[in-house]
Amino acid sequence: MENTRQQKRTIQRTILTYGTFDLTHIGHIRLLKRAKALGDYLVVGLSTDNFNTIKGKKTVIPYEQRKEILEAIKYVDKVIPEDRWEQKADDMKRFKSIADRKGIEPPVMVMGDDWKGKFDEFNCIYLPRTEGISTTQIKEILHNLNKVV
Amino acid sequence: MENTRQQKRTIQRTILTYGTFDLTHIGHIRLLKRAKALGDYLVVGLSTDNFNTIKGKKTVIPYEQRKEILEAIKYVDKVIPEDRWEQKADDMKRFKSIADRKGIEPPVMVMGDDWKGKFDEFNCIYLPRTEGISTTQIKEILHNLNKVV
Repeated sequence: MENTRQQKRTIQRTILTYGTFDLTHIGHIRLLKRAKALGDYLVVGLSTDNFNTIKGKKTVIPYEQRKEILEAIKYVDKVIPEDRWEQKADDMKRFKSIADRKGIEPPVMVMGDDWKGKFDEFNCIYLPRTEGISTTQIKEILHNLNKVV
Repeated sequence: MENTRQQKRTIQRTILTYGTFDLTHIGHIRLLKRAKALGDYLVVGLSTDNFNTIKGKKTVIPYEQRKEILEAIKYVDKVIPEDRWEQKADDMKRFKSIADRKGIEPPVMVMGDDWKGKFDEFNCIYLPRTEGISTTQIKEILHNLNKVV
């Protein structure tokens, strides 16, 4: 028993996923859960506020809070800042070389299927998004609520 | 070592907290973290949609999703539905009698200090809320964003 438990603790496959994770919702949680289930160590590359500005995006929740929330999710093992376009390639290369050195499986990238085809160079697995929920939809619901109130 | 680890797994004090936890934000996460730190098993009584209707409240996120998100938070051990006014008293009584039977410490109720004085009959501990963040404030930020867009 104890032996099995110890074996389980050794990381066999790191999963990397990327996003902004503004206004935490059930779609984020389910994606993180499914991503983690594909390996045993989940790294989230979280877009910094500065990188979002470069992308022309503005979040409601600042980076430090988005990070603290993600770190409280039980499927997430590590949050790293994503602050430039080349980072996915660099991260995948870095985690690949760590895996090679340790003799474990290479890292896998996982993204929501709204990104389908965009990251094929990384052998990315695209997971279905949760129907009927997104940060944009939450904003719309609130907009309509506020109109009524 | 193994002995210490096993001892840690025995519950010594259950913490109960209650709320609606609509639109997950950093204030919720920090409250749950601090609540859990006061014991070793955290039960969240989550207001059902029906109970919120009775209270004249309407959430953006339905009960089942609020529950699934809370269950993904690493500080939360169990989510139970809160669907009537007498439930806090009933729960505290029930967990007290379980604690007595097991010979462990009695349960402790923990609430945000916006409820200060309201649950003194339960020896409730009131924790400071996180400054500058609440579901209401998120709604206001989004309202203003939507006005600009």
